[in-house]
Amino acid sequence: MDVSTPAPQPRKQAPDAGRRSERSRRAIFEAALALVGEVGYPKTTVEGIAARAGVGKQTIYRWWSSKGDVLLDAFLDLSAQAAAEAGATDGEPYAIPDTGDLAADLKAVLRATVDELRDPRFEAPSRALAAEGLVNEQVGREFVARLLEPQLQLYVDRLRAAQDGGQVRPEVDPRIALELFVSPLAQRWLQRTGPISYDYTDTLVDYALYGIAARPPAEPSPPARN
Amino acid sequence: MDVSTPAPQPRKQAPDAGRRSERSRRAIFEAALALVGEVGYPKTTVEGIAARAGVGKQTIYRWWSSKGDVLLDAFLDLSAQAAAEAGATDGEPYAIPDTGDLAADLKAVLRATVDELRDPRFEAPSRALAAEGLVNEQVGREFVARLLEPQLQLYVDRLRAAQDGGQVRPEVDPRIALELFVSPLAQRWLQRTGPISYDYTDTLVDYALYGIAARPPAEPSPPARN
Repeated sequence: MDVSTPAPQPRKQAPDAGRRSERSRRAIFEAALALVGEVGYPKTTVEGIAARAGVGKQTIYRWWSSKGDVLLDAFLDLSAQAAAEAGATDGEPYAIPDTGDLAADLKAVLRATVDELRDPRFEAPSRALAAEGLVNEQVGREFVARLLEPQLQLYVDRLRAAQDGGQVRPEVDPRIALELFVSPLAQRWLQRTGPISYDYTDTLVDYALYGIAARPPAEPSPPARN
Repeated sequence: MDVSTPAPQPRKQAPDAGRRSERSRRAIFEAALALVGEVGYPKTTVEGIAARAGVGKQTIYRWWSSKGDVLLDAFLDLSAQAAAEAGATDGEPYAIPDTGDLAADLKAVLRATVDELRDPRFEAPSRALAAEGLVNEQVGREFVARLLEPQLQLYVDRLRAAQDGGQVRPEVDPRIALELFVSPLAQRWLQRTGPISYDYTDTLVDYALYGIAARPPAEPSPPARN
């Protein structure tokens, strides 16, 4: 796995997948994720990642300009792997299914997210990164913009399709609506405020779609749930 | 503000409000919150808090057994102050109003929370503590159990009252339902995933109560929103 002999290319050139060794790339990602999970973001260094991956520091600097860049790519790769395992197609690794049944589609995606959150490969590095993002505004904003928000936009797309199909009220803002089921799961996982399960995420979807309020008192009898 | 002369009492005795100097207690809280916000939880020490507060280390150890205990009390005090400024009564600092109008009551409380989250006294120490709770399970669980969950239980109480009054569907689990409006605000603030405002929290309450789904297609025309 040692590809540490520095090649004579200039640093920080544009990534060139063709020249990269897939094996060393994977070793670097795994080392970066393991390290940040073990010692936290501040103590993770490019030197430490290189040593653990069995590559030279220059190999990393040839492809990435900082530990933040390595970690961003490592997390994007991890998410792509999780999506691939969940059966996503190559072209759209995060696409949310559209079977016409919005509740079923959202529940399926959230169940897959529950599986991902329970994956031990994901746990420690994700917590370390999220923790750093809370106190380091630059890290937080970069990872939200490049990692989290693109995933949330897939829910926006799915909810817009549901609005077009008449399943979601037209005046609803999809970017806010998605938070009714995404944010509770995120908070339970991040802050350990409660257990996460398929039942739980199914319930979130039902509440978000149909509301928790009783139907208007003008109606004489309680209506069916949906 | 110096009350640093160690008294001959044994350490870790039960707190005795009568013997505490309110002035030194406040200085210790302010120092603890300022320090954790500036240097983070791991680098905050009892020695550092004592030095900044102008008290002796033994003064702190007489009342608290660890920096975690000091910080927990400091945050509880900060929340009580915020609640008092929001007009809460002394006996029930966090009570959620019950005017009979659930939507209005929830919106009022969430608007007060928006104000608190924007308070600079709150920002840095809260982020530092939340960040530590993400990666340090013991700290996370203790602060959730003693600080966050008691606040969430007030929403449970309010939603149960609404169920008793017929405004919330009886089959709804209040502990999950509250997350539809609490967790999105928490995530936007913690992870900076979006702006927070009164309009935003008002919208969350409306979506959570009435749902984002269009009414069932059996109905010929779209019903009024509530």
